[in-house]
Amino acid sequence: MKHAEEADIPDIADIHLAHARIRKQVRRTPVLNDPGLDEATGCRLFCKCENLQFTGAFKFRGASNAIACLAEQGMAGDVATHSSGNHGAALALAARLDGRTAHVVMPENSSRMKIEAVKHYGGQVHFCAPTNESRVFELEKLVRQGLIPVHPYDDARIIAGQGTAALELEQEIPTLEKIITPLGGGGLVSGTVIASRKWGVGVYAVEPEGAADTVASLQQGKIIDRFTPDTIADGLRAIVGVRNFQVIRTGVKQVLTVSDQDIRDAMILFWQTLKILIEPSSATVIAAIRNHPEIFSGSKVGALISGGNIHPSEWVRLTAEAVKQPGSGE
Amino acid sequence: MKHAEEADIPDIADIHLAHARIRKQVRRTPVLNDPGLDEATGCRLFCKCENLQFTGAFKFRGASNAIACLAEQGMAGDVATHSSGNHGAALALAARLDGRTAHVVMPENSSRMKIEAVKHYGGQVHFCAPTNESRVFELEKLVRQGLIPVHPYDDARIIAGQGTAALELEQEIPTLEKIITPLGGGGLVSGTVIASRKWGVGVYAVEPEGAADTVASLQQGKIIDRFTPDTIADGLRAIVGVRNFQVIRTGVKQVLTVSDQDIRDAMILFWQTLKILIEPSSATVIAAIRNHPEIFSGSKVGALISGGNIHPSEWVRLTAEAVKQPGSGE
Repeated sequence: MKHAEEADIPDIADIHLAHARIRKQVRRTPVLNDPGLDEATGCRLFCKCENLQFTGAFKFRGASNAIACLAEQGMAGDVATHSSGNHGAALALAARLDGRTAHVVMPENSSRMKIEAVKHYGGQVHFCAPTNESRVFELEKLVRQGLIPVHPYDDARIIAGQGTAALELEQEIPTLEKIITPLGGGGLVSGTVIASRKWGVGVYAVEPEGAADTVASLQQGKIIDRFTPDTIADGLRAIVGVRNFQVIRTGVKQVLTVSDQDIRDAMILFWQTLKILIEPSSATVIAAIRNHPEIFSGSKVGALISGGNIHPSEWVRLTAEAVKQPGSGE
Repeated sequence: MKHAEEADIPDIADIHLAHARIRKQVRRTPVLNDPGLDEATGCRLFCKCENLQFTGAFKFRGASNAIACLAEQGMAGDVATHSSGNHGAALALAARLDGRTAHVVMPENSSRMKIEAVKHYGGQVHFCAPTNESRVFELEKLVRQGLIPVHPYDDARIIAGQGTAALELEQEIPTLEKIITPLGGGGLVSGTVIASRKWGVGVYAVEPEGAADTVASLQQGKIIDRFTPDTIADGLRAIVGVRNFQVIRTGVKQVLTVSDQDIRDAMILFWQTLKILIEPSSATVIAAIRNHPEIFSGSKVGALISGGNIHPSEWVRLTAEAVKQPGSGE
């Protein structure tokens, strides 16, 4: 396999190819605008609702593309990955639809609902300690046993697949000025940057304050190698990937950060206006837009709502904490 | 005003006119299909997600059309209605967008969230006892004070507006064989029947067992005049309207009933598959499809998901009760 430096990074043509491969398998998710949400954020906000994607997250795009690529190349066999949940569920379903099994290394503190989802779609769960090193180590073990690795984000096929969400958003609202996505490992952000280069829209990314490894890496000019995340946004705890970092470094206007409290308030706002529950990772983009009127106010903004995999009782628990604290949304 | 017998019932042309009037104000809601939901219901199910309509329910269609008609006719002034909540919120917003105030008579046992919604959109709430007689009496008082009445369902403008949802569904999935809607006062059902006459799709309606007044009225050949509803489906407690009954009697293939337990299970299923919270009234259609494989199995079915106005903590409370009882979904 090529190093990232040797350009194992997809270009816009790869994203179009990915879209052609997966568009019959993935849902063309709705783009929703809401006057109440516009009023609360001060911009014209168009939400690409990947929370309504199959498996409840954009991850099904990348996973579907990766599996379709394996099939095209005639590579039979089961696959393996590590994931806090959404990529695992997505790969499990994409693999199953192609007659394969996905083995998913999951941190033992993953959300129970996400663990159940991986199993529900036919995946096999392998638990590990909640550190990046442990994830990598466990995945390597599975690969040595002959499974085909599909990295959750540091993978050209995955990046190309995730970029198809921005492609659809461009087709629907071509006049957007800015686009914002959550940033965990960087699959969605890097795909979005590549998909929107010709489009000319400004790409912003958001990390929780407790998982701002990319901000730290950008400051140091290289990926930091040790990092213990602490945030309610369970989908954004991973460390940024090599390919993803390379794309983000040059293609993202700014990586913003938001507090867990901001995230809770944004979850409430999104529900109050659109009557949709989103997981904390998704709410980061709404929180960042509210925090940064100097960037977004008055603009036409596209927000990638990444996932909706949160149990309603967990949503109630998290947002009740928001209400208890001073200065919260409700 | 003409009696229903004198044909104050809209036809397909009225529904097209309504659509032309309101389509820039209402959201063209997404139609979602899900393999997991297909598997659980045994049919190819296309959900017209009016829970994502502005104000969280299809009611905004009828309310927008009624207000637009008043404006066309040069009738200025505030409006009044009675509503368990969703029509009230919808009329409040439609009125406000036209520079009017809506006065809403609400049963004192209405969901708190629905009361808050009416106020949020600028409506004035007038409480009444939770009976049909009390609603009617309070509304008449307001009308005597000079307010313009907009009945929640027994009104040609409202029926025409609600019919626009089926119109959009036909445009999107013209090959549907059957269509199913919840049945409270009958606005959505009668609009759907009229909208789909030329289309040739079979229309089914669903009542909760604890609010099956229309089934009783059909058996008696006339609308029953006394009725105390008992169901968790708070949006379906009203008694069927005169115009609506006339349309339903000839145009609906069958009115099905479901238990509150069926409704709870369907709320859970809908969330598990589509990751969307729907209110009990909406879940009735999913429950009825599951209960009646002899009607729906193997068919291409359109379901009107009527509303999503339920607080997540209320959803958790209701579905937790489902889990506690034997034979429930999860």
